[in-house]
Amino acid sequence: MQAYQHVLFATDFTDEALQVGARAKEIAQRYGARLSLIHVIEPIVVSPGYDLLPVMPELPDEVLQTSSQEALRRLTERLEIPDAGQRVITGVSTKEGILEAVRELGVDLIVIGSHGRHGLALLLGSTANAVLHGAPCDVLAVRIHS
Amino acid sequence: MQAYQHVLFATDFTDEALQVGARAKEIAQRYGARLSLIHVIEPIVVSPGYDLLPVMPELPDEVLQTSSQEALRRLTERLEIPDAGQRVITGVSTKEGILEAVRELGVDLIVIGSHGRHGLALLLGSTANAVLHGAPCDVLAVRIHS
Repeated sequence: MQAYQHVLFATDFTDEALQVGARAKEIAQRYGARLSLIHVIEPIVVSPGYDLLPVMPELPDEVLQTSSQEALRRLTERLEIPDAGQRVITGVSTKEGILEAVRELGVDLIVIGSHGRHGLALLLGSTANAVLHGAPCDVLAVRIHS
Repeated sequence: MQAYQHVLFATDFTDEALQVGARAKEIAQRYGARLSLIHVIEPIVVSPGYDLLPVMPELPDEVLQTSSQEALRRLTERLEIPDAGQRVITGVSTKEGILEAVRELGVDLIVIGSHGRHGLALLLGSTANAVLHGAPCDVLAVRIHS
């Protein structure tokens, strides 16, 4: 069995990014693996009648892209992982964006935060769940206590 | 952030147990963590009309318990982890059994195999998915290629 070679930390820049990122950093170090960070900017979906969908300000794509790149850069600074790869992916779902990066980078371990949702949120599906069921590699779901 | 102290490998004795168990063993070794194995014997549920449920032979509980303990012991031999803890849990769902062990043993990382199911199997729910959404700790889903 091969040791992990490339760890991918998928972040949405929530408050828990440092907690999940610290675990991704630590496991990559223990395995001597590469570490990459990605953030996926999902397309804004307007679905009348579904008020549960997150409301996002409509910003031009370039602004979102630039601010996401800057946020990724700051995150690598705070996590003290200057050598980590950084990538912003746009126009696809978070799941698809993560799986795209997994294929292109040859990732063998995805690290993602998980809220342990219940009830309605679980039925609607979480990103961790979607990634778990689509990933061609191992997935480490880091429990976020909130 | 604390390093993992106690890794729990939940196995159903499928053909992939060695693959998933080898990863559990490896990560426990890299962290210097304890490793425990559990198998949960779910109660037999007779639900007329739901032919999708697995059909199990009706064996006395003691027979199932003994054969499961023996299977766990053989698994620790094949994985060369003689010092790993072993526990058979009966009478609850696999999810509940795993979470019970997590609480009692102070587990901070669950390792479980994941088939990456789609469609109907995904809707019905997988064990990995159920554990992911109930666990108070991190969950490593090891991709089974089948």
